[in-house]
Amino acid sequence: MKQQHTDISNTHRYCVIMCGGVGSRFWPASRTARPKQFIDFCGTGRSLLQMTYDRLLPLVPKENILIVTNSQYAELIRTQLPDIAGHQILLEPARRNTAPCIAWAAYHIHAIDPKASMIVTPADHLITRETEFHKSINRAFEFVESGDSLLTLGISPDRPETGYGYIQMGTPVSDDFYKVKTFTEKPNLELAKVFLGTGEFLWNSGIFIWKTETLIEALRTYSPDIASRFDAGIEAFGTPDELPFIAREFGSCPSVSIDYALMEKARNVFVEAVNIGWSDLGTWSSLRDHTPRNASGNVTQGCTVMSYNTSGSVFTVAGKDKLVVVDGLHDYVIADTDDVLLICPIANEQHIKQYVNDVKQLIGDKHL
Amino acid sequence: MKQQHTDISNTHRYCVIMCGGVGSRFWPASRTARPKQFIDFCGTGRSLLQMTYDRLLPLVPKENILIVTNSQYAELIRTQLPDIAGHQILLEPARRNTAPCIAWAAYHIHAIDPKASMIVTPADHLITRETEFHKSINRAFEFVESGDSLLTLGISPDRPETGYGYIQMGTPVSDDFYKVKTFTEKPNLELAKVFLGTGEFLWNSGIFIWKTETLIEALRTYSPDIASRFDAGIEAFGTPDELPFIAREFGSCPSVSIDYALMEKARNVFVEAVNIGWSDLGTWSSLRDHTPRNASGNVTQGCTVMSYNTSGSVFTVAGKDKLVVVDGLHDYVIADTDDVLLICPIANEQHIKQYVNDVKQLIGDKHL
Repeated sequence: MKQQHTDISNTHRYCVIMCGGVGSRFWPASRTARPKQFIDFCGTGRSLLQMTYDRLLPLVPKENILIVTNSQYAELIRTQLPDIAGHQILLEPARRNTAPCIAWAAYHIHAIDPKASMIVTPADHLITRETEFHKSINRAFEFVESGDSLLTLGISPDRPETGYGYIQMGTPVSDDFYKVKTFTEKPNLELAKVFLGTGEFLWNSGIFIWKTETLIEALRTYSPDIASRFDAGIEAFGTPDELPFIAREFGSCPSVSIDYALMEKARNVFVEAVNIGWSDLGTWSSLRDHTPRNASGNVTQGCTVMSYNTSGSVFTVAGKDKLVVVDGLHDYVIADTDDVLLICPIANEQHIKQYVNDVKQLIGDKHL
Repeated sequence: MKQQHTDISNTHRYCVIMCGGVGSRFWPASRTARPKQFIDFCGTGRSLLQMTYDRLLPLVPKENILIVTNSQYAELIRTQLPDIAGHQILLEPARRNTAPCIAWAAYHIHAIDPKASMIVTPADHLITRETEFHKSINRAFEFVESGDSLLTLGISPDRPETGYGYIQMGTPVSDDFYKVKTFTEKPNLELAKVFLGTGEFLWNSGIFIWKTETLIEALRTYSPDIASRFDAGIEAFGTPDELPFIAREFGSCPSVSIDYALMEKARNVFVEAVNIGWSDLGTWSSLRDHTPRNASGNVTQGCTVMSYNTSGSVFTVAGKDKLVVVDGLHDYVIADTDDVLLICPIANEQHIKQYVNDVKQLIGDKHL
């Protein structure tokens, strides 16, 4: 009976995978033409997008999974997710950060199913505790479906990470669910340590759950510049007029994040504190720290590495059957593709965006 | 008249390029299938073999240049030296070090031209002072043609190099020509400093000049185990029977160097002290020290390198148009090919042979 109930209730549940990022922090392994989410980054045989899709499948009917992405990745998505129908892929005509992306998905789903609730998740995060994830998301759906809440997933921190945004928990409303007190951008180490010490802060995962109705109403209140653009075509969503409307209007949306456009302003924002083995895999060091190391303490992807006096390094190699022989590197990234070889201390990984800019300036787009 | 005289006199002069080495110290840039001598190692657009050939052309008639090599490199040589006729390439059926290689060339030339004199040179050395080289070699030919001398080229040392053998000069016999007192294997640094201090020692270049008659007689006296094998087929040389004879007998020669087989034992050994900008390019560090560096103090071959905080390193990349972005490497070798990437401190370059052995043990011949 319980199972039957779930089956009925999840027909109004939708998953939206945001899949349009360029992943420039992982250049050259991640390329404009084939960013991070499309790469088998963990050596599992599945790309991060495929792992995300697999993880969502048990939560909602397969046809309720949508992918929002830049139009240049349509073909990659069809190849990597052959079970996804064309109408489940929303192709953004321009990159406008997460708020317009999520708004479109919400208006689209709401037109099809006014009773819909939805989870929004990036395509390129790592979640290792899948059962716990499913339990948390089902509870999250139940939570938002029983009221008018904007819910975000918060990760209990285990270290003073400076690479993530933080959410301060306010009043508890039920087990693991809290009113959000504040959102904080990436803190410095000192502040991160304070956050960790208070026990009041969670990492901002960038995974959201809400009813489409709640989200659209909140956008109308807190981000009218975005909502008004979509409302202008409200009759078009769910009809053949939707794509022409989007093609015409999407580019005029401001490029802002959903955190900035909505979450930091709205009052009905809640957080579920979860423990799902999450990482945003946002940097080489986070990749290294969340991927099994070999006996020498290195992470190797797509290559055989014979290492001497080398540790704490990440080797990611695109060429099939390539052999890497390395001596005397500690805590380096070695990313090798057909036309680019990057060797860089992991401690300097924040410089990679600068390298990419330099390449663009000096050589052009060829290697990006 | 002088020119006319030279033209007549050099018809009996021959050049023998030894081109059969495997260059394993430069793995993976140098591969069994395409060793160092076939690579454009200096970024000049010509391989070391081609540079050697170009350098010898003004010295002797073109048809008097012979290449001795392992049979597996026949095709590479025909491609790189299209002006060389098939009969100018002597294909060794087995690798037997320099003594049997030189002996065959000498017996072969002597059968064709009993008045011949010859220079023997490796295919993979660098000589930057070409005019001085030509002057020195012409004097060398005149020297050996006027008597029965085994002549070697000695390089005036400018540093206490431990990677070369040394020749001690004895009695001077004419300008720059000396009787050889001793040959010494690679010394340790302390001894090399003493050698440099005395002013009596030259580096052993491995370049030899002699009449074929003198060389064959010396082999008969000092290396009868080699000479007797070639003498057994003396009627065959210069006839269609030569190749079958070599195919049958060459492999039974002992594998020894000409230094060990002859030069260290013979009495009629002389050295010409030359200053020709010579390097045997035997190691990555010698390559680095004899190749122009870019503004960042690195040597780059076949690739564009964008370097940050990187110096004294050698980048050799086989992939066309490959971009290397590197941060934080000082005095490293980075050698990238289609199927192997080597990153190694230049200070550990003597370990490369060990890496190659390890690869052979663990993976097999695939990457060698």
